[in-house]
Amino acid sequence: MYQEAWKRMLEANHIVIVSHVHPDGDTLGSALALYDVLTRVGKKVTHYNTNNELPRVYDFLPGFAKTKHVLPKTFDLVVSCDCSTRDRLKLPKGDYEIINIDHHITNRYFGQMNLVVDRFTSAGMVVYELLKANEIEISKECAICLYTAIADDTGFFLYGDMDALTFSIVSHLVKCGANPQEIASKVKRREPLSKIRLYGYMLNHFDLHENGTIATIIFDKAALESTGAKRHDTKNIINMLRSIVNVTSAIMILEEKEGGYKVSLRSKDINVSQIALEYQGGGHKTAAGFEVPSCDPTVLRDEIVAKIKRITEV
Amino acid sequence: MYQEAWKRMLEANHIVIVSHVHPDGDTLGSALALYDVLTRVGKKVTHYNTNNELPRVYDFLPGFAKTKHVLPKTFDLVVSCDCSTRDRLKLPKGDYEIINIDHHITNRYFGQMNLVVDRFTSAGMVVYELLKANEIEISKECAICLYTAIADDTGFFLYGDMDALTFSIVSHLVKCGANPQEIASKVKRREPLSKIRLYGYMLNHFDLHENGTIATIIFDKAALESTGAKRHDTKNIINMLRSIVNVTSAIMILEEKEGGYKVSLRSKDINVSQIALEYQGGGHKTAAGFEVPSCDPTVLRDEIVAKIKRITEV
Repeated sequence: MYQEAWKRMLEANHIVIVSHVHPDGDTLGSALALYDVLTRVGKKVTHYNTNNELPRVYDFLPGFAKTKHVLPKTFDLVVSCDCSTRDRLKLPKGDYEIINIDHHITNRYFGQMNLVVDRFTSAGMVVYELLKANEIEISKECAICLYTAIADDTGFFLYGDMDALTFSIVSHLVKCGANPQEIASKVKRREPLSKIRLYGYMLNHFDLHENGTIATIIFDKAALESTGAKRHDTKNIINMLRSIVNVTSAIMILEEKEGGYKVSLRSKDINVSQIALEYQGGGHKTAAGFEVPSCDPTVLRDEIVAKIKRITEV
Repeated sequence: MYQEAWKRMLEANHIVIVSHVHPDGDTLGSALALYDVLTRVGKKVTHYNTNNELPRVYDFLPGFAKTKHVLPKTFDLVVSCDCSTRDRLKLPKGDYEIINIDHHITNRYFGQMNLVVDRFTSAGMVVYELLKANEIEISKECAICLYTAIADDTGFFLYGDMDALTFSIVSHLVKCGANPQEIASKVKRREPLSKIRLYGYMLNHFDLHENGTIATIIFDKAALESTGAKRHDTKNIINMLRSIVNVTSAIMILEEKEGGYKVSLRSKDINVSQIALEYQGGGHKTAAGFEVPSCDPTVLRDEIVAKIKRITEV
């Protein structure tokens, strides 16, 4: 399958590599690694992302600045990276040929070819295996992209089912020129002051329920405004509440600018995805989420706390 | 050297393995890995640590509960792990034979044998190489100890000069049974509530200087009391201030129970160890510290800020 996919890429005239909406390090790293490799072999390639503003912490990735936010007029192959459903690519309708490279267990197999390996912790690992299977040399630039992809999707080796293969790939990427400390510094040590202030707000306003086993925080519009934080500054900050010793699950409720609320659920081992499903959301066992229209956020919070309590008691 | 050291251990009648004062994951993991291996080959071994209370987050390490805080009456070999000076072993004076296993560049070579590899990011890597050189099989228990040692000393792969060897060793340890996610969960997701509240205090009381390039926080006794935090809860929390995008260095000043202040300096690339040296302290380029007797902490802070400013302007 890896050979076939590579052959198809070499045959294409103009390849559009697509990273998903609200991109993270895995989708960008995987896409830009492929961008590096394919331009090196002389292919015409465009990296497309629908968001005009990409997260700045990934600006060190080779090729980052060449990302296009408008599709080229013609192209004959789409390669999708780290995307489980076609709608998150934000491509206009059309009869594209798609190679779908992903690792989500929920992947919909929307491509003509689907390189989906759900035991991998990141799409970056799939791209690595694709290159290895075709004996493609990994440049320093490509190694930086793939290291970032693999590290980012595990919170830098904290979450997910990392196995011996994960680390042997990482070891090889470091040999090829990826600098772990430099990459960590770029991704993890460039927090905006607004995000730090949002942490401060959270740590002074969170609540504990059920004997301190459930932690909750509500961010209304005013909270975000008072700290200067943007919506993406809320990303992952709930993990700090989950890290408290007696806390088994944490809930973040975020008031959206355009109305309604976004809810993030995290647990240590309770299956919170089943709660998300009840609200037409989704996710993984220990990290899930959903969106709801306008409501009283404290009522919503108490409702979710009760649901978690019920699961815990089973 | 690795062969000789192992031979000497096999010849000894009773080996005392020592981890250093205020132990971290590297010293405990290295010591307990050796403890596992040597007891398996039938040696009489004691793991000794001077502190009666070990950090609870390492309680999952196999052998942790067997740690002794009193030395056995007789023993004929000491193996020191992750310790740069003899005084941090807290051994009574005596003519012990010592095998000194370490990775600090400042190691004083106080042993009769010194297995000091300063290009390694952790003592755990030295222990691994010792086992490998002697073709010792790595049990699951040993792998858990060594994974923790290596991960902990790099802040779980964020700091230090991690190279391809680091990750290839880690890959092998995972193959031998270390579970990266479980270990991260034990070490990183059991924060006491007091530490979370101390973070909250810090994020609501820190100051910025020099156009936001220097972040400072003073913890007086009242701050610790108001949050319920203990001294060891302050460990590493200053890293969060250093992670702010424009911050190049961060200063934490902590009032000690017994009087005086402990100062921690962190930077992104400025050499703060030279400032620590001026106050008879020490450390590394980007992480250093020192202690001072009673003083006005705000005066001290302004003094250090001025010194950092001077270095930055050079």
